[in-house]
This record gives sequence, structure tokens and C-alpha cells, in this order.
Amino acid sequence: VTIHAEYTHAPASADDAIRVLDGLRTRGPLVHCMTNIVVAGFTANVLLAVGASPAMVENAEESADFAAVADAVLVNLGTLSPHKVTAMRLAVDAAGRAGTPWVLDPVAVGALAYRTGFAAELLAGRPAVIRGNPSEILSLAGVADAAGRGVDSTTDSGTALERAAALAQAKGTTVAVSGATDYITDGARVLEVSTGHEMMTRVTGVGCALGALVAASCAVEESPLVAATAATTILTVAAEVAVERSIGPGSFAVALLDALYTLDETTIREHLRVAS
Amino acid sequence: VTIHAEYTHAPASADDAIRVLDGLRTRGPLVHCMTNIVVAGFTANVLLAVGASPAMVENAEESADFAAVADAVLVNLGTLSPHKVTAMRLAVDAAGRAGTPWVLDPVAVGALAYRTGFAAELLAGRPAVIRGNPSEILSLAGVADAAGRGVDSTTDSGTALERAAALAQAKGTTVAVSGATDYITDGARVLEVSTGHEMMTRVTGVGCALGALVAASCAVEESPLVAATAATTILTVAAEVAVERSIGPGSFAVALLDALYTLDETTIREHLRVAS
Amino acid sequence: VTIHAEYTHAPASADDAIRVLDGLRTRGPLVHCMTNIVVAGFTANVLLAVGASPAMVENAEESADFAAVADAVLVNLGTLSPHKVTAMRLAVDAAGRAGTPWVLDPVAVGALAYRTGFAAELLAGRPAVIRGNPSEILSLAGVADAAGRGVDSTTDSGTALERAAALAQAKGTTVAVSGATDYITDGARVLEVSTGHEMMTRVTGVGCALGALVAASCAVEESPLVAATAATTILTVAAEVAVERSIGPGSFAVALLDALYTLDETTIREHLRVAS
Repeated sequence: VTIHAEYTHAPASADDAIRVLDGLRTRGPLVHCMTNIVVAGFTANVLLAVGASPAMVENAEESADFAAVADAVLVNLGTLSPHKVTAMRLAVDAAGRAGTPWVLDPVAVGALAYRTGFAAELLAGRPAVIRGNPSEILSLAGVADAAGRGVDSTTDSGTALERAAALAQAKGTTVAVSGATDYITDGARVLEVSTGHEMMTRVTGVGCALGALVAASCAVEESPLVAATAATTILTVAAEVAVERSIGPGSFAVALLDALYTLDETTIREHLRVAS
Repeated sequence: VTIHAEYTHAPASADDAIRVLDGLRTRGPLVHCMTNIVVAGFTANVLLAVGASPAMVENAEESADFAAVADAVLVNLGTLSPHKVTAMRLAVDAAGRAGTPWVLDPVAVGALAYRTGFAAELLAGRPAVIRGNPSEILSLAGVADAAGRGVDSTTDSGTALERAAALAQAKGTTVAVSGATDYITDGARVLEVSTGHEMMTRVTGVGCALGALVAASCAVEESPLVAATAATTILTVAAEVAVERSIGPGSFAVALLDALYTLDETTIREHLRVAS
Repeated sequence: VTIHAEYTHAPASADDAIRVLDGLRTRGPLVHCMTNIVVAGFTANVLLAVGASPAMVENAEESADFAAVADAVLVNLGTLSPHKVTAMRLAVDAAGRAGTPWVLDPVAVGALAYRTGFAAELLAGRPAVIRGNPSEILSLAGVADAAGRGVDSTTDSGTALERAAALAQAKGTTVAVSGATDYITDGARVLEVSTGHEMMTRVTGVGCALGALVAASCAVEESPLVAATAATTILTVAAEVAVERSIGPGSFAVALLDALYTLDETTIREHLRVAS
């Protein structure tokens, strides 16, 4: 992919991933997850595997209170309802007032008008990071006809990068575009993660769990750009380890949780060396 | 079981299952799943394992839009709510207008009045296939006191066959009755699937995932009778493979996803030969 | 931990656990689970692994009807909504009228005002057992500032024991406090379960599944104190077996279901002997 000259461009740092993983394990951040019914269990298990403390609180009666005490908030638009939309609004407001970092995962935005409008509204609440697939990011950035196919992207991450950087700059946020290569940008810099495996797309919720891991990482690392890149590195290196120990998507999902739990510095360094 | 003389009766075809599986893998149909909170993740993983593209959209604000663009729709009554009932009505209407095949999985119908009435209403929307356990199918067919015990059947599939065939004929649909032997009928013909294993009843959502697989198969095979039989064959052969590689329901569920992912023509032919 | 002299105090009985496990397997109690979206699938799989028959019915239109026919009811406050609150009220009322034992799992009570108030209200419906972590039990018992951190406890089970016993006595119920050591008390007696493993806290829903297993056990054992202790013994012994066969939380969760399915008398006796 051609990176526009105005951005500084670098590969993901093993040091950052190692430091963030250590922060997750020693500090165990409380992550308020507002996510979808498909992936809630897997998301919680990914967070627990790295030492974070997930709690799913999704009703309008409690979401603001909880966002104010959590260390980070995840807002994933996978399975919306009017009640959940209200709860998310309240949580985003409360997170803003409390200075709690929050992450927007705009699942299937562009493909369905209701959530596309809601995602646009949420952008005003200044997420620390937006994490999505290329179609979702292009749609959020206002590109017409960028809509993916259901929850899947119809374009690649490199194609979305320029628009992702412009979106990050315009909204004062960090944008993480998932794909065969992941790009994370704050509008000035672009960090690139080349680790990972196609099997990640054969298990539901791996992308959604990445959104949650980005939120958790924002609680232990001040720079959202670094946090999102470290989270992506941690998950994709664990995925490479898991692929070696599995024969299909069932055993891969199990091995991914094990790999996150046992991931160490040496493994991260080795996989990043091979990827570069 | 005694099959009434008026039906032609045949075992499942390995050729059909192989062709449908190939269709799923090469075309990756987009399956709009409206299902229950218990099995949503497992259902998505079963669909991903065979190459389909699942998306769970369950709110009244989006369900009609999505049903119109999906390749197939699943309506599973497991965990209903008034909002979800509205969303399902809209999706079924939209699927009808768009000519999208949709599958009804009448979970626990007969046991609870609210869903029994709603299922009867949905029948007017002409599902391509109804997939259920014997108690559910008998209840849908109007047999009093057929109700199962919670989500489980209290009768066997052979007992329900005559009524299933009559229901299929009356409603112009295909009915798939799950059990130790699975029967699939369009009212004129009966196809029989003898593969499978009791362990399938020890993991939540295997039956529900079959409903989703039937929906996916309807997107790549024009005959609902053939599609439902092929889906049942694919899942039950994979289950036989998985049982050989597992020691209990935990490892079975994992192995089932792996087996679906790696399933090939030879394995399907071998297992059908042994079963017949 | 110092046990107040007024309570009789004993370790868990292997005989009780073996008898209850046998009851679950031979009678297959129908367990009406009203639980949260994170753990619904895992909870169902735990119940299926021991031979019980789970069904999740959570809407206000059906919950009373189903509570009246189920053998036991679980009310878990993990992911509440106004509609689910109404459904739970109706289920608890119907269970009371029908004499169906029901179990309260007060997830995150104390940490959030809405559910704290609702849990206090539910106590009037006389649950057979309350199962929670120490922070939740202390909060239910009216201890100010006992609130945990999200869904996790910030205190240990021994600290909560005196208050748990007083709560049990005041409300005419049994209280099960989960922790490194589990204490189960009806206000007069205290039973203690020392089996288990820290890995149980690294998989989402193990505590919630214990609540469901307690409910199932109440359907096959008249004494809630014995039922709750047996359920805790069964799950914690299975956890010890599973830890030996796993390398992280992913494989542990899988092995836990397998271990529940294959658990036998000899294994229960051996693990209790080592623990005492």
C-alpha cells in the first residue's frame, strides 16, 4: 500500500505491546463492555485471558453510573435496540464527563441506515479509538457506497487508510482499520501490524474482542495510538501461536484464549521479527 | 418407522450434501439470523465454519432492511421479546417481498402459549423450511398436548412424520423433523438422515445451528427439501467425526466446528455408506 | 477463618455430592434460567453436561407460565433491563405459588443502585438459595461500602461468612458465598467446600453456571443447604480435573464441561480427601 507522504509510518513496536500486556496483567482494568449478544461471552473471555476485568452493563438505568467508575468503555454496535441506543448515549456522556477513554466499534455501519446515523452521532462524543473493518471505517468517513456485506468488509485495509487518517484528524481520535494488515492512525502517524492469520475471520467475535482489548489497553497506556497498536499486536501474535496448535476454527478459538493467557515477551518479539 | 404409502421415501444423498457444501464454501451466503441469546455465538461459528457469512440483526429498526439484502433469513423463537416479535414480523414480510428464503425454528412451541400463537401467525409468511424437534412440529401441526418439556422433545421423530408431511402439504413448505433419525418432507417426498450422534443433544444450540445451516443451504440450493436434507447431512456427518475426537460435550462442540471446516467429499460418502 | 461458635461447621460431604449428581443424571430436571447474555450459552452447556435440561425464558409474556412448570428457576441479575426485571418479578411470584425452588444470583449488587434495589425486593420472594461472591453477599446483607469492582469481589469469602449466616437466618434462606473456599450456610449450619482452582475466575460465567447448578440441584435434593453444597462440590472437583488437562482458560472451559460429563464417584471422593 502507498502511504501518503504526509504521514510518518512505522511498524508496531514489540516494546509497546509487551509493556501494555504487562499493564493489563498487573493493573487488571475494569472494562465496561456494551457489546452484542453474539460475542459477549467470547469478549469477556478474551479480556479475562489477559488479566482485565470485563463487565457487561447495557441498560439505560445503569450504564452512566458504570461508565463513570470503569477504567474504559467499549461501545459495539453489533446488535442494537432502542433501549441499548439510549444506554450507549448515557454511557458515552458519562465517560466524557469522567474522562474515561471509550472505544467505538461501528459494526456493519454503512450497511444499515439506523446504525449509520447513530454512529455519526456518537462521533461527537470523542471516542479515544474507533476500531472497524475497512468498509465500516470508509462509511464512517462519509464515503458513499462503502457499505460492507453484513458484518464483513468488501474492501481491504490499505484502501481505507487515507480516509481513516483524515477521519482521525477531523475528529481528534485514533482510527484502527483491521485487515490482513492492520493500520492504526491518529491522523499524523500510521502504525502497521502485519502479524495475524486468516483464521481470525472464521471465528465470530475476534474483531469485536479486539475492540474490547483496545479499550482495556487505553486504560493502561495514555496514547490511544500506542494502546490500539499494542492491543492489535497482542491479539494477532496470539492468533499466530493459536493457528499452530489448531486444526480448524473450533480449536483455534480455544487456543487463542490459551495463547493470550500464556503470551510472553519472547513470543511477541519473535513473531514481530518474522512479520517485518 | 412406518412411512405412509402415499409418500416416496429415500435416504439422504451424498451428492446433494457435497454440492451444497461446495456452494456454501464458494458463494459464502449472507445469512440474516434472528435467533436466541443462548446460541447466537455458536450459530455464527457453525455458519463461519462452512464458509457462510452470518449477521445477527434483531431490532425492528433494521430487520426489514437487512432481510431484503440477505441471501437467507433464520427466524428462531428461542428467546422472544415483544420488540423481537415485531422485528421478526418485519423481517418475514421483507423476505417475502424480496423472495428471500427464510427458515422457521419454532423453539419450545407448544410449551408456551405466547410463542405458539406467534409461530402460527408466522406460518402465513410461507417459510421455505420449518425445522424443529418432534414436539414442536406436532404442536405446529395442531396436535393438542404435543408440547415438549421446555426446549426438549417428548416424542420421537418417526411419530411426528405423518403430521409433518401433512403440515408441509397444507402450508406449501418443507418440514424437517430432528431426532435420532431426521426426516425432511415437502408433503410428497420424505428424505431420511440416519447419521448423527446422541452427543448433539448435550451441547446447547446444535439444533438451532442446524436451522441456520438449513437457511444458508436454501441460499445455494433451489429445492428447500434438498437444501434442508443436505444441511442435516453435513451437520450430522461432522458430528460423527467430532465424536471420534472428543471425550465429552466440551471437546465435542470444539471438534464439531473443526469437522465442519475440514469436511470433505470422502468423509461424507463414507459416513452415509455406514449409516445406510 | 474464625467461625462463630454458634454455628455448627463441617466440610462438604462426598456422599451428598454423589447422590445429587446421580439425581441430576437420572431425573434431568428442567431448569428455567433467567440469566445474562454473557453466560447464557455456557450456563446451558454446564447444565446439559450434568444431565439437566436448561431452558432460557426471559420475557414477561412467558416467564410466569414457565416458572410454574419448571423444576427450578434461576434468577441472575447480570444484564438487567426493565422488561427483564418485570419478567423476573412474574417468574418469582409464579415459582412461589407453585412451590418451585428458585435461586438468586445477585451479580454486581452493591456496585449499581438499580440492581441493588431490585435484589432487595426479590428477597421478599424467598429464594431457596442466594449464591454470590463475598462483595455481593455483604451488599445484600446491608453492609455499606461492600460493593465489589464490577462483577468481581473485593473481599474474601471468610470475611463475608458471619453476615451471610445472619442474612440466611433473617430471610429464611440458604446463602452460598463463593471464593477460594466456598461457604454455604442456612444460618444455623455452615458447610465448607475447599476444592476448586483460581482458573475458575479466568473464564466468564463459571460463578453464574454454579448458580444454575445450585438451582438444578434444588430440584433433586430437598435441603437447599445440601443441594448448594453438592453443586459447589461437583463444579469445583470438575474444575480440579479440568485444570490438570488444560494449559489456559480456553482449554480449561472445554475440559470443565468434559469433566462434568464424565465425573464419577471415585474422582469426587479422591479430590475431597486431598482437600480436607
